[in-house]
Amino acid sequence: MTLAPPPAARVGDSLASVATPSLIIDLDAFDANLAAMSAFAARHGVALRPHAKAHKSSEIAKRQIEAGAVGVCCQKLSEAYPFAAAGIASIHVSNEFVGADKLEMAVELASHVRLSVCVDALPQVHALGDAAKRAGVTIDVLPEVDAGQHRCGVTSVDALLALVDGIASQSALRFAGIQAYHGGIQHVADWAARKNEANRAADVAARYVQALNARGVRCGIVTGGGTGTVEFDAASGVFTELQPGSYLFMDGDYGSIGWGGESGWRHSLFVLSTVMSATRPGMAVCDVGLKGLAVDSGLPRSVHWLDAKGEALTYISANDEHGMLQAQRESDGDFAGLVGKRILLPPGHCDPTVNLYDEYVCHRNGRVTDIWPIDARGLSR
Amino acid sequence: MTLAPPPAARVGDSLASVATPSLIIDLDAFDANLAAMSAFAARHGVALRPHAKAHKSSEIAKRQIEAGAVGVCCQKLSEAYPFAAAGIASIHVSNEFVGADKLEMAVELASHVRLSVCVDALPQVHALGDAAKRAGVTIDVLPEVDAGQHRCGVTSVDALLALVDGIASQSALRFAGIQAYHGGIQHVADWAARKNEANRAADVAARYVQALNARGVRCGIVTGGGTGTVEFDAASGVFTELQPGSYLFMDGDYGSIGWGGESGWRHSLFVLSTVMSATRPGMAVCDVGLKGLAVDSGLPRSVHWLDAKGEALTYISANDEHGMLQAQRESDGDFAGLVGKRILLPPGHCDPTVNLYDEYVCHRNGRVTDIWPIDARGLSR
Repeated sequence: MTLAPPPAARVGDSLASVATPSLIIDLDAFDANLAAMSAFAARHGVALRPHAKAHKSSEIAKRQIEAGAVGVCCQKLSEAYPFAAAGIASIHVSNEFVGADKLEMAVELASHVRLSVCVDALPQVHALGDAAKRAGVTIDVLPEVDAGQHRCGVTSVDALLALVDGIASQSALRFAGIQAYHGGIQHVADWAARKNEANRAADVAARYVQALNARGVRCGIVTGGGTGTVEFDAASGVFTELQPGSYLFMDGDYGSIGWGGESGWRHSLFVLSTVMSATRPGMAVCDVGLKGLAVDSGLPRSVHWLDAKGEALTYISANDEHGMLQAQRESDGDFAGLVGKRILLPPGHCDPTVNLYDEYVCHRNGRVTDIWPIDARGLSR
Repeated sequence: MTLAPPPAARVGDSLASVATPSLIIDLDAFDANLAAMSAFAARHGVALRPHAKAHKSSEIAKRQIEAGAVGVCCQKLSEAYPFAAAGIASIHVSNEFVGADKLEMAVELASHVRLSVCVDALPQVHALGDAAKRAGVTIDVLPEVDAGQHRCGVTSVDALLALVDGIASQSALRFAGIQAYHGGIQHVADWAARKNEANRAADVAARYVQALNARGVRCGIVTGGGTGTVEFDAASGVFTELQPGSYLFMDGDYGSIGWGGESGWRHSLFVLSTVMSATRPGMAVCDVGLKGLAVDSGLPRSVHWLDAKGEALTYISANDEHGMLQAQRESDGDFAGLVGKRILLPPGHCDPTVNLYDEYVCHRNGRVTDIWPIDARGLSR
């Protein structure tokens, strides 16, 4: 039986008629962010390789490439497939991986795109080199160094050199540079403190590069950086390539921290929701909860009425499919009249929120102009 | 180009070779839970209508029906589609909804299944009645009463009676009973305290039923209850139908609270992950984070080695695609040897974790026997 829910939206629809919950892109803000980051990277003479884990959409990746990006990052091998299938020619998997299932994907991807990957342990270098050789492909390898996040990455020059030697010993691998990413400082609230932290991470990366140079190893690429530190990373002179992802969308957490310098990222990503119940004074319930909003970095910090005429409400808690909205002013008002009204919610954290949806509904001035599949949704292997 | 990631697993595979991260069902534990709840409901003479929002899989719903369930609950109309398509004949949408997009789904579903829905406001009754009449379908309607959760549901007998009258005035609607669900007490840690709260919710429901009876309105169904309170709900004599969902899987949060009476739910749902980096003493990194584990009810509370031979580790934090694992005992040990080893993680909250995956990999004794699509994943409209 072909029985499936109707589409959430069609091109030409008014935003007010889009089914809810839906994930919405404000294309004017999105385009401004897209252009601003491309111009920023060009101005500073660094390559831009945006992180596709933030948007998981080949339609968006194609627009990033058209705007000047040298390729994209993915965080997982399976995540890279839709981008490879869509013709993105250069993909960096900015993460370690291990196991036969992963090697199978790596060599398949490398037969379609210029693939680079991260490593931080010698057994993975050998396994990858053997698999690539058997498959007749070449893979660029960037050892990851721990720039202060204390997650993955080598923690000593000796360990880095051992990896570089290991890569050199594999005919199907090519040492392409290093990755130095510090995710933990991207959201440091104070701009100056964030600058200090970013500079410290860049110094760590610089010391590894110097150690390589001292041994006659040329480090072509130093890749890293994120939306929160991109200005400092570009100014450091250390990074040759930047990996920001969230700049396209922003989110509640990034929206809550301090910004300075050239930054001017706009919120372009929202969840459209409908008030579907309001039986108690000063309270309303909307139709999006944990299954439509990632809450790991907090609840939506604001509630925008689509028609700009409603009460000021706060999103105070989320159940699976319910969002609780509370009047900001003390109120015993009857909110029954709000039922059916639409709200826009900026997600607390864009990346895992995007991973809950199958498509973006894109609009300009309230009119749906595009629907983009989130074709890497759920691809976490 | 047909370029897509290889399947995560094939029937017959060893669990040790399943690609990670994957969502795993231990079928022995699952079957035990399935049978126990069916026997429980039969023993207490209440209908069992399990909540499909917990599993989102028509394969599982079919097994619940075969084991005696009268139908399933869904939390959203779009979520009901795959179950209707799979031949589940009776579906209760245990939630309010509003808007033209929702009415379109309701009447389409009602033309394929026996559909019941919740309401808590008169305008929705009229809109639903008009839409059903136009479409030539009949819809069972169960007003929701607020049993103490203070989310949706009417808060007075007068409001309930107005809904009942409104339903009676609509030729395409049928008053079928009431819903009284209190999600907020399902996870009360103390068994006796949970019993008190459940009994209080049942008393609220009973008063609404009595008020209906006093006015000559027969209340056929009183539906509600969840895994945490199902014993008290069944014993109350108020509920005619129970809606538990999590009993099939359990999760970290349910696993951490007190249980008594006849309860003996087993953990059957796990995320299979691989240690993919370990460059610092006493620490390791696995390949599942926020995009493969819902963390709204906490991180995985335990880490099980698939081969039962590793260090005792604690999952201490999650990034998008990384999970940080820390040695439980003070350790300066080199964990590099753990890289490549598999772990099983019981999710903190099963429902939103399930909503991140496209399939269940089901095993018995470490051998993959079934792969079930999570065909309602992402269907939150």
